[in-house]
Amino acid sequence: MAGERMASEVAEQPAVFDSLVARAGDFAEVASLIAARKPRFALLAARGSSDHAALYAKYLIEVFLQLPAGLVSPSTTTLYGARPDFTDVLYLSVSQSGGSPDLVAATEAARAQGALTVAVTNTPTSPLSDAAELSVDIGAGTELAVAATKTYSATLLSLYLLVDAIRGGEGAAVAGIGELASAALAAPIDEAIERFRGIERVVTTGRGYSSATAAEAALKLAETSYLSARAYSGADLLHGPVAAIDESTGVVAVTSKGHGGAAMRDVVSTVHERGATVLAVGSSASEIPADLRIDLPETQEEVAPILEILPLQRLALALSLARGGDPDNPRGLNKVTRTL
Amino acid sequence: MAGERMASEVAEQPAVFDSLVARAGDFAEVASLIAARKPRFALLAARGSSDHAALYAKYLIEVFLQLPAGLVSPSTTTLYGARPDFTDVLYLSVSQSGGSPDLVAATEAARAQGALTVAVTNTPTSPLSDAAELSVDIGAGTELAVAATKTYSATLLSLYLLVDAIRGGEGAAVAGIGELASAALAAPIDEAIERFRGIERVVTTGRGYSSATAAEAALKLAETSYLSARAYSGADLLHGPVAAIDESTGVVAVTSKGHGGAAMRDVVSTVHERGATVLAVGSSASEIPADLRIDLPETQEEVAPILEILPLQRLALALSLARGGDPDNPRGLNKVTRTL
Repeated sequence: MAGERMASEVAEQPAVFDSLVARAGDFAEVASLIAARKPRFALLAARGSSDHAALYAKYLIEVFLQLPAGLVSPSTTTLYGARPDFTDVLYLSVSQSGGSPDLVAATEAARAQGALTVAVTNTPTSPLSDAAELSVDIGAGTELAVAATKTYSATLLSLYLLVDAIRGGEGAAVAGIGELASAALAAPIDEAIERFRGIERVVTTGRGYSSATAAEAALKLAETSYLSARAYSGADLLHGPVAAIDESTGVVAVTSKGHGGAAMRDVVSTVHERGATVLAVGSSASEIPADLRIDLPETQEEVAPILEILPLQRLALALSLARGGDPDNPRGLNKVTRTL
Repeated sequence: MAGERMASEVAEQPAVFDSLVARAGDFAEVASLIAARKPRFALLAARGSSDHAALYAKYLIEVFLQLPAGLVSPSTTTLYGARPDFTDVLYLSVSQSGGSPDLVAATEAARAQGALTVAVTNTPTSPLSDAAELSVDIGAGTELAVAATKTYSATLLSLYLLVDAIRGGEGAAVAGIGELASAALAAPIDEAIERFRGIERVVTTGRGYSSATAAEAALKLAETSYLSARAYSGADLLHGPVAAIDESTGVVAVTSKGHGGAAMRDVVSTVHERGATVLAVGSSASEIPADLRIDLPETQEEVAPILEILPLQRLALALSLARGGDPDNPRGLNKVTRTL
């Protein structure tokens, strides 16, 4: 059946979350090794969906650990042979497969230059795990569908557990995340499917932690449904891209309770006034002037992205099927790309 | 006349470059103050087009200065009140207007936390220049068109001059950039206009330094021509988004001589085989299996992005006009957005 793999992996997420939370001790162990080294800066290297998880972690690191953090492009070392001094740098390499050669090479280079390297992967025996000094296993199990779903959300949760443990936390805010994920997956999306199935151009938008959700949702829609989908930070959107938003555009606005969601109100009002079909997703969706809403359980703001993506994965899958596609066999996709 | 402002500002770029190169001493002065402080890490904060210039600078900083560098989201300080320890951090805030309140607040916070803050703006009397300890003026003159053109390229050149001067260079590689820019602006684009005017979905792609060109070209096309345009690193593209590329897609591939351009060959072959209309832009365009080419003068690879964007600005302008738009009066755009 078309989309069966993706559907089954989407449905596994509550169980994956439960088992991750049960393994919080593994994360605490790596976290204590990291904390003992007292890093002063954090850099995150990733590609594709993992890059969106890295964006989420960047916020966590700056807010929870008060460390300056930035996203890097592996290319500076792999293409240009840069060899910066990485003393005091926590270098997190995020990749579900752990097999991207450029990420492995960049991690090796960072380690050789003095960084504390940590691999976050779904493949504990991967080249990336070998290249890094420390590693954590996101434990999502084999992912067969080409579109990353459970590995993306498991990466978010793993990064949450890791960063929270570095600050001495015990994951209290994610203790019940499996159950909340079940509720999030049960949220009705029929009306959203109906309204979005004829739309060719989708813009996704979020602020703060939820910027990651917007980025990942756009990628998911683009790769499964062949929609034209593009993510903008709510802050960037009003700068310029809003010009391209009109009655033919679908906007997915991620709006959970908290500072990020509150900062989205003006953005949503603006795109709504321009006639776009606005779908609000999150725990504060009901407070937003949207055409459609997917309400999610309320959590602490920094945990919300782990839930927000779930109905959007279902939406991507459903739109792919509604448009005659098969998200399990998208055109031209490989699970690991050997970029050099 | 529709598009007159944008056309005139695009045409000013060679003169803007000449005057910037003549002011290399200003950059050397700020650069020597930066070098004396011996920063160990660089962070770049920006939004919109300036964020693409920051991406370019990230490569320059890692390759020329061998400093770890990352892009930051201002939101962590403005939305979440994070107060990381910024000792030893060179914090570059890039904004043509210098007026974005969130960037100003983030710069103030970074400075208060110990960063060496440097504003790169077109408005030397702006709040951002006041907030930062040091500042450089990109000297592009008033920009009236809403789409940033000369301020984007002047920001690239300013960042080049600054970073090159920090390493003790004297801008030798950009000495003749004004003349090369005139040649780049004279490159024929008629065939590209003809082939792209009916295309609704454009993907732009580049690697290394030229990732910035791909990102900026997509934004320019999206905001002036209301095309759906999305940029991917050549490395990311083959991971997933390539699934959405077919005969109806236009691909703009940035391929200049050097490591970045060479790494694009597989990417271009793949999208070409999928039936996309491929436009190659750059000094190695002629070596690429494309349908259309815009050949540009050869430069050192790290200088190429300053030229690559020029014909793409002209293409965005021409497509906007061909499609009945007016890039000088796009729908819903404001020059400065007051994101908080």
